[in-house]
Amino acid sequence: MTELGVVHRAIKRADRTLVDKLAPLGVATVHEAMGRIGLMKPYMRPIYPGAQVGGTAVTVLLHPGDNWMLHVAAEQIEPGDVVVAAVTSDSDDGFFGDLLATSFKARGARALIIDAGVRDVRTLTEMGFPVWSKCVSAKGTVKATLGSVNIPVVCAGALVNPGDAIVADDDGVVVAPAALIEKAVAAAAAREANEADKRAKLAAGVLGLDMYKMREPLAKAGLKYID
Amino acid sequence: MTELGVVHRAIKRADRTLVDKLAPLGVATVHEAMGRIGLMKPYMRPIYPGAQVGGTAVTVLLHPGDNWMLHVAAEQIEPGDVVVAAVTSDSDDGFFGDLLATSFKARGARALIIDAGVRDVRTLTEMGFPVWSKCVSAKGTVKATLGSVNIPVVCAGALVNPGDAIVADDDGVVVAPAALIEKAVAAAAAREANEADKRAKLAAGVLGLDMYKMREPLAKAGLKYID
Amino acid sequence: MTELGVVHRAIKRADRTLVDKLAPLGVATVHEAMGRIGLMKPYMRPIYPGAQVGGTAVTVLLHPGDNWMLHVAAEQIEPGDVVVAAVTSDSDDGFFGDLLATSFKARGARALIIDAGVRDVRTLTEMGFPVWSKCVSAKGTVKATLGSVNIPVVCAGALVNPGDAIVADDDGVVVAPAALIEKAVAAAAAREANEADKRAKLAAGVLGLDMYKMREPLAKAGLKYID
Amino acid sequence: MTELGVVHRAIKRADRTLVDKLAPLGVATVHEAMGRIGLMKPYMRPIYPGAQVGGTAVTVLLHPGDNWMLHVAAEQIEPGDVVVAAVTSDSDDGFFGDLLATSFKARGARALIIDAGVRDVRTLTEMGFPVWSKCVSAKGTVKATLGSVNIPVVCAGALVNPGDAIVADDDGVVVAPAALIEKAVAAAAAREANEADKRAKLAAGVLGLDMYKMREPLAKAGLKYID
Amino acid sequence: MTELGVVHRAIKRADRTLVDKLAPLGVATVHEAMGRIGLMKPYMRPIYPGAQVGGTAVTVLLHPGDNWMLHVAAEQIEPGDVVVAAVTSDSDDGFFGDLLATSFKARGARALIIDAGVRDVRTLTEMGFPVWSKCVSAKGTVKATLGSVNIPVVCAGALVNPGDAIVADDDGVVVAPAALIEKAVAAAAAREANEADKRAKLAAGVLGLDMYKMREPLAKAGLKYID
Amino acid sequence: MTELGVVHRAIKRADRTLVDKLAPLGVATVHEAMGRIGLMKPYMRPIYPGAQVGGTAVTVLLHPGDNWMLHVAAEQIEPGDVVVAAVTSDSDDGFFGDLLATSFKARGARALIIDAGVRDVRTLTEMGFPVWSKCVSAKGTVKATLGSVNIPVVCAGALVNPGDAIVADDDGVVVAPAALIEKAVAAAAAREANEADKRAKLAAGVLGLDMYKMREPLAKAGLKYID
Repeated sequence: MTELGVVHRAIKRADRTLVDKLAPLGVATVHEAMGRIGLMKPYMRPIYPGAQVGGTAVTVLLHPGDNWMLHVAAEQIEPGDVVVAAVTSDSDDGFFGDLLATSFKARGARALIIDAGVRDVRTLTEMGFPVWSKCVSAKGTVKATLGSVNIPVVCAGALVNPGDAIVADDDGVVVAPAALIEKAVAAAAAREANEADKRAKLAAGVLGLDMYKMREPLAKAGLKYID
Repeated sequence: MTELGVVHRAIKRADRTLVDKLAPLGVATVHEAMGRIGLMKPYMRPIYPGAQVGGTAVTVLLHPGDNWMLHVAAEQIEPGDVVVAAVTSDSDDGFFGDLLATSFKARGARALIIDAGVRDVRTLTEMGFPVWSKCVSAKGTVKATLGSVNIPVVCAGALVNPGDAIVADDDGVVVAPAALIEKAVAAAAAREANEADKRAKLAAGVLGLDMYKMREPLAKAGLKYID
Repeated sequence: MTELGVVHRAIKRADRTLVDKLAPLGVATVHEAMGRIGLMKPYMRPIYPGAQVGGTAVTVLLHPGDNWMLHVAAEQIEPGDVVVAAVTSDSDDGFFGDLLATSFKARGARALIIDAGVRDVRTLTEMGFPVWSKCVSAKGTVKATLGSVNIPVVCAGALVNPGDAIVADDDGVVVAPAALIEKAVAAAAAREANEADKRAKLAAGVLGLDMYKMREPLAKAGLKYID
Repeated sequence: MTELGVVHRAIKRADRTLVDKLAPLGVATVHEAMGRIGLMKPYMRPIYPGAQVGGTAVTVLLHPGDNWMLHVAAEQIEPGDVVVAAVTSDSDDGFFGDLLATSFKARGARALIIDAGVRDVRTLTEMGFPVWSKCVSAKGTVKATLGSVNIPVVCAGALVNPGDAIVADDDGVVVAPAALIEKAVAAAAAREANEADKRAKLAAGVLGLDMYKMREPLAKAGLKYID
Repeated sequence: MTELGVVHRAIKRADRTLVDKLAPLGVATVHEAMGRIGLMKPYMRPIYPGAQVGGTAVTVLLHPGDNWMLHVAAEQIEPGDVVVAAVTSDSDDGFFGDLLATSFKARGARALIIDAGVRDVRTLTEMGFPVWSKCVSAKGTVKATLGSVNIPVVCAGALVNPGDAIVADDDGVVVAPAALIEKAVAAAAAREANEADKRAKLAAGVLGLDMYKMREPLAKAGLKYID
Repeated sequence: MTELGVVHRAIKRADRTLVDKLAPLGVATVHEAMGRIGLMKPYMRPIYPGAQVGGTAVTVLLHPGDNWMLHVAAEQIEPGDVVVAAVTSDSDDGFFGDLLATSFKARGARALIIDAGVRDVRTLTEMGFPVWSKCVSAKGTVKATLGSVNIPVVCAGALVNPGDAIVADDDGVVVAPAALIEKAVAAAAAREANEADKRAKLAAGVLGLDMYKMREPLAKAGLKYID
C-alpha cells in the first residue's frame, strides 16, 4: 500500500538470472509473452536511441518539484537494479541530472525510469546512462518533502512493485512481476523461434492472410472484395 | 464514402513516373506547389531521421487496438505503394511491427503512414523501412473487427483517396491528389530553380525585405521604426 | 510593453564577452546559477541533438500563420544574436525554413528560438543552423499582418526582453537578463568547480546522503527505514 | 478537392425533411445507424449543455487567426443550414462572436461547428445560438487571407461535403452524407423502437448477458469465473 | 495481478457503513485524511456538476474500443457498488450509454468511473446516473475481446482493488483501500471539526499567517518584505 | 525581475475607478480595445459560468505542489484586488480551496486567477468566489519553499505586473497594464456604441460583406464565385 515517509530496505528482487534473459527479448516480445500486461504509457521515451536494459526495480515515490527521495533511493541500489520513479502528481521538472547519474551508476544501477523530466541529457548520453522519461527539462528541484522508497508505485500507468523485473528499449518500458518472469521467458523464447520462421516466409512474399489462415474468418466476418 | 468491411482491389494509382518526381522535392515544397493543401498534422513523425519517400497510397481504415486490416492490405500492395492507415478513433497502440514490415517490404511497399502507434522501431530502422506515426508503442493489437482497404480515409487531418501520391520526409507527410501532381511537379521545379537564386542572394547578405520588395507594403501597413 | 507594428532598432545587448562565457556552462547550470528563473517550457526542443549556443536576443512577435516579421527581424540581427520568436496565439505552422535560415546565418545569427513550428529541418541540420521549436511542420505562412520586433515577448512561458542573453542546449532554453549575467557566470563557475569534486566522490561510491549531510534532516522530517 | 479562394454558391443540400428527422434521434443513434462513420473528434464540445440541432452544411476553410471567410459564408447561408468551419492548421483563436452570430442567425443558420475557438459565449448562450468548438478564446482574428466556402473540408477529423447533414448534441457532432440519410433515418427508427423494449427489460433487472445472449460467446472466448 | 479473461465473483467489499461515512466528507478531505494517496488524475471529470457519491469498487479491465466486459461486470454489481473501468491503452470511445446505465442502476450501482469516454450524457443526466470520465464521445464500441472483472486495475493513474471504497465529487475521484477507511473517517471527522473553527476565524479576517504560525518559519526560510 | 523569496508590499495599483469601468466591457472587448495584447491562454477556465470580475493584481509565484506563498499573499490583498498566481513549472495540484477562499474573500479579493489546479469547487461556487484555473484537482500541497509576492509573473502566457488591471469572464482572462486602461476604456466604449448599431443592422439581415465593405478587397484578393 502507498505510504509516505518510509524506505523498505529488505525487498525481494526477481531472480537476476531470469531477468537477464528477459532484456534481450525486447519490450514488445516480453509484453506479448506475459499476456499483454505491465506496459507503461507510450509517452515514456529514451533520452537516446539504442539502449536496451533489464533489471530489478527499486521504486521511488516523489513529490512534484522535489527529488529528495532519489538521494535516499541511491543507497538502496544494488548492482543490476533499475530505479523506477513516480510522482504524486504530474510534473515536468528535471528531477535527475549528471551528479545523481554518477552516483546511481557507481552503485550499479542500469537505468532510470521516471514519470517526469530529466536534465543534463548530453552528459548522460556521453556517460551511457540510459533514462526513459516523460520529458527533458533543465528545471531543478528542491529537497523538502518526504516521499518513499520501495513501496508499490504507479509509474506512467503501470503498477510497479519493488523487485519486479523492468525491461526498457526503443519501444518503451514494461514491468514483469517476479511470478511471471519464468513463464514469460519460456513463452518469449517459443515466440521468437516461431517468428524467425514466419519472418522468412513473409520475406519470401507469403501473405499473412495465408500464413495465419485469415481468409476464412475474414469472409465469415463479412469482408467483401470489390473490383 | 466511408464503408466498413470492403476491400477495393481496382484502384487507380497516380502515375508512378510523376510521383517519383515529387519525392525528391520534399514535403514543404510539394505542399507549397499544390497551393498549401493536403498536409497531415505535425504530430506525425518519422521513426528515424533522413528518410524521404514518395509513393501511391493504399489506404486502410482500422479499429482502435485492432490491426486485422493491415494483413488484408498487404495483399493489395504493389511495388511503389505507401500504406496509409487511419483509425476510427484515437489509438496509441502499436499496430505494426517487424513481421508486418517484412511482409510489406516483400510486397514492394516503400513506407507506412499510420495515425497511431508502431513498435519494433529498432528493427524497422535496421531494415530501413520508414514509418511516420503518431507515437511508438509496444502494445500489440487484436484481429477481431473488420475495417476497410482502399476507401477514402482521413489520416492525421488529411483526406487520402486510394492511389493519391504521398510524400514524406523529416518535415512531415503530404498527400497529392492525382489530378494535381503534374501541376505540382511543374510548380515545384519552378520554385526550386527560383529558390537557388534567392538562396545565393540571401547568403550574400541581401535582405528578404529588399529581395521580396517588402519595405513599401510594410510601411503602408503602418510599421514604425523606433531608434 | 507589448505594442504591435513597431521595430525597435536601438536595443541594448548584454555584454557579448559575458554572454559567451554563459553558453559553455549549459542551460541547467545557468538556470541554477541565476536562482532558477527564466526557463522556457520543456516542449521547446532542438531540431538536432548536440547544439549548444549562446547569444543576445532579437525578439519578434508574430501572428499565427504569418511570418512577415521574421523578414523584418533579419535586418536587426547583429553577429552573435539569437532570434526569439513568440506568436500572439498558439500556432503549429512552419514559420521558418532554409531560405530564412540562410539569411539569418548571413547576418550572423547563431540560432532561432520559436514558440511554433519550423520546416526544412534536414537542410537546417546540414547547414548547422540550430533551431529550438515547439514542433516541426511543413506548413508555410502568409505575410499579411504586422507584429513587432524587439519588444518584450513571452516565449514558451518565459519573458524575453530584447538584448537579454539566451542559452540553449539539449536540456532546453534559458533567458538571462543582462543585469544577472555577471553574477550568473560567477555563480556557475563556482558551482562547476564544486561539482567536479562532488562528481569524483559520487563516482567513488560516496552517497549523496552523506556528502550533502541529508541523514539528519531526513530523520527529522520523519523518514522511517523498514527491514 | 480543396481549393483556396473559391465560393461555391450552387450546392446540393440534403433533403431538409429528412435532415429534420435525424436531429431528434441524437448523435449517438445517428452514428450507429450509419454504420459508425462521420463522427467528429470528442474535443468538439457545445458552449452550453442541452442544445440539439440538425441542418445542412455550409462549409468554410479558414486560415489560422483569420476569420474573413466566415463573413463570406454568411451570404451563402439558407434557413436550416449549419456552418461548419475548418482551419488549415490548428488554431485556438476566437473566430466567431456575437456580431457574426447575429448575422448567421438572421440568415437562418441553426448552429456553428468550428474546429477552433469561439468568443462572447455568454451572449451566444443568451441568444440561444449554439456553437460546438475546440475551445473558447477572447482572441480576435484578422481579415487578410482568402480561404474558401462550400468546398469539402476535414473538420475535427471528419470529412464534410457542402450540403451534408450535420447533427450535434451533448455527445458531439456527426456528419451524414446525403446518400445515407434516408437509410440512417430508417435504421435509427428501428433501433430506437428496439431500444425502448431493451430499456424496459434492463430496468427490470434483466442482464444484458442474457438479453443479448452473450454467455455462450463469452464462454467460447474463454472467460473464466473464479469464486 | 493483472490477468485477462477472468471474473472474480467473490470479492471482499469494504464495510458499507464506513464507506457511507466517507462520501459526505468529499474527495479533497478523504484524500487528505488518508495521507494524500489514491487520487485519480484531474482529467477525470463528472458529466454533470453536483454529484457526490461513495461506494465499493467493482473493477473492469477493457480493451480499447470494446465494452464487452461492462456487460459481464453488470452481473457482479451489488447495491452500493461503483463500477471502475480501466482500458489496456488510451481510448476516447464512448463505452457506456443509457442502456448500460439503466442496467447498472437496476443492479444498484451508484456511479461509473471510466478512464475513457461515455455517451448519451443528456439522458444519463436526466436519469441522475453520475459518471466520471476522461471525455464524452458518441462513438460506440464492439464486443469482441475478453478483458477481466474484479482484478486490480490502474484507472487514471490510481491503483484500484476490487472492493476498495471510491469517493467522487466535483473535485475528482479518490480510492480508499479497505484497510484505511476507518482511520480516514476518523481523521476526516477531526479535520472537518477543526476546519469549521478555522473557517470562522479566516472569515473574521484573521490571517493564515497568524493562525498557522507561519511568520517565523517564513522568516527563517529567508522571506524578505520590501516596501 | 523575477526574484524568489521577496514580498513587495508597496505596489502601485491601477486606478480603481477606471478598473471598475473595464470589467463590464468583458474580456473580448477589453482585449480588442487594447490592441489585442495581454490575453491569457484559453485553457484558463472559470469554475462556474457567468462570473465577470475586474480588479487589480496581487501577483504570486509558487513552486509546483507548494502553496505557501498564497498564505503570504493573503496579507497583501486590498479590497478590489484579484490574486494572480503563477507556478515555476507546470503543476495540476489543487493549490487553493475553501479555507483560503474564505480568507481571500474576507480580505476583499474578488477572484483568483491560477495557472494550476483548484479544489473544493462546489463550496467555492456556493460562496460565489470565482476562480479561473487550468484544472480542478483535489490534491493538496505542501508549505515548504519560498516563492514571491508582487513580482512580475508570467501566468498562462501573459505577463502580469503587480497592480495591473485584470478582467475575467466566460471568455477568459485579460491583463491591462495601468498605462493602457484609460485608453482602453475609451476605445472600448466607442467600440461598444459602434457595435450596437452594427448588431441592429446584422439582425435585420444586412451582410457583413456590405456593412464592412469587404466585397472589393475580396475580389482584389482574387476570390472567385462558382455557380
